[in-house]
Amino acid sequence: MREFKDFLHLVRTRRSIRRFKKEKIPKNLLDGILEAGRWAPSGLNNQPWRFKILGGKEKDDLANFTKYSSIVKSADKVILVFLDKNSSYHYQKDLMAIGACIENMLLYIHWQGWGGCWLGEILNRREEVNKFLGLKDNLELCGVIALGKPYRKISKGKRYKLSKLLL
Amino acid sequence: MREFKDFLHLVRTRRSIRRFKKEKIPKNLLDGILEAGRWAPSGLNNQPWRFKILGGKEKDDLANFTKYSSIVKSADKVILVFLDKNSSYHYQKDLMAIGACIENMLLYIHWQGWGGCWLGEILNRREEVNKFLGLKDNLELCGVIALGKPYRKISKGKRYKLSKLLL
Repeated sequence: MREFKDFLHLVRTRRSIRRFKKEKIPKNLLDGILEAGRWAPSGLNNQPWRFKILGGKEKDDLANFTKYSSIVKSADKVILVFLDKNSSYHYQKDLMAIGACIENMLLYIHWQGWGGCWLGEILNRREEVNKFLGLKDNLELCGVIALGKPYRKISKGKRYKLSKLLL
Repeated sequence: MREFKDFLHLVRTRRSIRRFKKEKIPKNLLDGILEAGRWAPSGLNNQPWRFKILGGKEKDDLANFTKYSSIVKSADKVILVFLDKNSSYHYQKDLMAIGACIENMLLYIHWQGWGGCWLGEILNRREEVNKFLGLKDNLELCGVIALGKPYRKISKGKRYKLSKLLL
């Protein structure tokens, strides 16, 4: 696990990175991220996730669809994650599977020493995003990962104590 | 990463384990699993996940609510994962966060050399499960993880090629 002591260390130190250095993402990093996502579990192994990668001007134009445009603009690339409704068998379970898929990608990004930010506010304008990208209605935008080299050292995260979460 | 070469190796070798040895789960393993889940990302960091652990007779009684009863009975323990609707701010994003939380737990279980199975069919009877456990309506069952020592060596998984997933 590179500089990580163990899996818990990896999970605990992952953060949303909102500002990035001007550093290009190598092709093999991008391949690894998608590979990690591709191996997520899904109900009946239906693998409902689909990916679209944007960089350059297309990425900067996508920034217009979210109030977090500065994160998208700062990122070298973004990965859009869609639910393919033609592959769906149970909407709630598909969404959880896509959450697992995104988490795999975020953990891989962090493990490789890069940074990601899971953006959700842009879903408010998912129809417009589809139109902008020329994608059909069966593809439902579920999340966007902004991706790049973290600008500064990551801060400490906060979580509820376990006692609040245990029933 | 113990016997794992890297994060991709961990992700690629994780499988749904449906039959377990009669081996007790140590307390510190269970603590680690919940710790991994607790550190998942969520929208606005709302952490909508709640956990209930069952073992022994209560676990075996839970088996009555799913056609996959043999998996639940074979497991040493099960972890029920709920969405607390009182903590919800966006239902779809909450479900994805819970998927990320469950994936963290499944990866930790696998990393530790144990096995888990993410069960979803039981959601068909979530209201009855809540009644059985005396839980209020704000808690929506989202998934059950069956947990134990794998009975046999795990098999190879299958995923679509990346070319099918890229838009």
